[in-house]
Amino acid sequence: MNLNVVRTRGELRQRVDAWRRAGASTIAMVPTMGALHAGHVALVESARRACDRVVVTLFVNPTQFAPNEDFAAYPRTEDADRAKLEALGVDVLFAPSTEEMYPPGFATTISVAGPSEGLESAFRPHFFAGVATVVAKLLVAGMPDQAYFGEKDYQQLLVVRCMAADLGLPTEIIGRPTVREADGLALSSRNAYLSPDERARAPLLHRSMSEAAQRIAAGGPPTDALAEAVAAIRSAGFDPDYLEVRNAASLAPVDDWRTEPLRMLAAARLGRTRLIDNIPVANPA
Amino acid sequence: MNLNVVRTRGELRQRVDAWRRAGASTIAMVPTMGALHAGHVALVESARRACDRVVVTLFVNPTQFAPNEDFAAYPRTEDADRAKLEALGVDVLFAPSTEEMYPPGFATTISVAGPSEGLESAFRPHFFAGVATVVAKLLVAGMPDQAYFGEKDYQQLLVVRCMAADLGLPTEIIGRPTVREADGLALSSRNAYLSPDERARAPLLHRSMSEAAQRIAAGGPPTDALAEAVAAIRSAGFDPDYLEVRNAASLAPVDDWRTEPLRMLAAARLGRTRLIDNIPVANPA
Repeated sequence: MNLNVVRTRGELRQRVDAWRRAGASTIAMVPTMGALHAGHVALVESARRACDRVVVTLFVNPTQFAPNEDFAAYPRTEDADRAKLEALGVDVLFAPSTEEMYPPGFATTISVAGPSEGLESAFRPHFFAGVATVVAKLLVAGMPDQAYFGEKDYQQLLVVRCMAADLGLPTEIIGRPTVREADGLALSSRNAYLSPDERARAPLLHRSMSEAAQRIAAGGPPTDALAEAVAAIRSAGFDPDYLEVRNAASLAPVDDWRTEPLRMLAAARLGRTRLIDNIPVANPA
Repeated sequence: MNLNVVRTRGELRQRVDAWRRAGASTIAMVPTMGALHAGHVALVESARRACDRVVVTLFVNPTQFAPNEDFAAYPRTEDADRAKLEALGVDVLFAPSTEEMYPPGFATTISVAGPSEGLESAFRPHFFAGVATVVAKLLVAGMPDQAYFGEKDYQQLLVVRCMAADLGLPTEIIGRPTVREADGLALSSRNAYLSPDERARAPLLHRSMSEAAQRIAAGGPPTDALAEAVAAIRSAGFDPDYLEVRNAASLAPVDDWRTEPLRMLAAARLGRTRLIDNIPVANPA
């Protein structure tokens, strides 16, 4: 077990080429922004089981943060992250500098319409272009067979999948279920921002969403169920950005509640922390 | 000598992978929209000399045409193109359908700031995003070592080079000199639109540019030289979109005429045909 840390795309490509020449039939990539938690660990374990070689990337990507967002404050814990990845049997940690990813004169942006429309985009208009561009660069650098993303960032997962398919990148984009605390709170590196009091209230987001999903699955009017969930989190001090049910495959608004795959997605601020979550919704009979 | 025509990106990738496995050390791609003329032939000959294998692509890319432009009228001469490419010893012609390149749900756009700003973009605002996106898809599909573009589309050459570098594609973007008729007119598939009378006047664009370049190199005021070139082509019935000198590397406006590399670029309509051209400009002493 020997974790190699690689800082340039050229070195990463050399490693991957050497693995291919040596007969590695499947290579996985797990893109992260570090501050690794059990959700990341589950992604790495899935990748480790499925593939001969695993590359984890660690890059806090400045272009997906707006100026008023938490780029500077985002937790950076590379030493702890390296120890976790070494214990998980990861082969390479690719941790480039900002200059390596965005050298002077960098001028290219990849934008994805379709699944990026609405939801997060209404509140973070440059977010998905930042994500799509940096993930494309990571995939081009490593050319993995599979890349693993958490369903916690469900819209991001669909945007990345669309980008990879549209550009014809030879990488299968794999989504894995959200990992939660015992009380239902979705794991997120940003949970570290929560005060003890906020942490105690935070699980209400998931609980309210689950209750609304049950009411919709039982045939209740979706508008009423969603409005009640919004009222519940608002009265607990959340400031919701959105709480909606969309087509789980396209993220388009739902036309037919009984036949389309359904996904409930929400974002809400609690103090200075912005929480997002999403869950499947069973079709009403 | 045996030209293989391939219609899908999957088939193209299989061919290229087989060449790599068989030891081809260098693969070239020459992206075209067909209607091949001596300018394309020169690109293919350069590629043929430099690389073990040559792929020519033929795709009239709808996303780089605005609704009021000539997508429907653009010349399509695949049989003649195939015969030329076979004679030139090209290995594969990749000629996909529109549906192969843009299947339902396609939603991704690659845009490049920097060299795309101004000049053509002021008149064809969606052109370079269309070009950058389709060329990225072609390069990802074929992963060539080199891709050849004509300097006739000088701004396009710089945009494609920037895109490929920014995304980290492993392809060197090579520009080759514009091929001209004996009277100086730059070869273009669109020259076929010119009436006999327009064809007789068309070389004045290049002649006026060359005269202006000589005056600037001799130390004349650039503004005057360019204004006279504009007046000359206008009096011959051209309707100029732009005629400017820019930094040849960045396409930024020129600060220091004596030290920066200089390129004069122009676009002008003559009847229903839009002609573009560009030439180097020597620095004044």
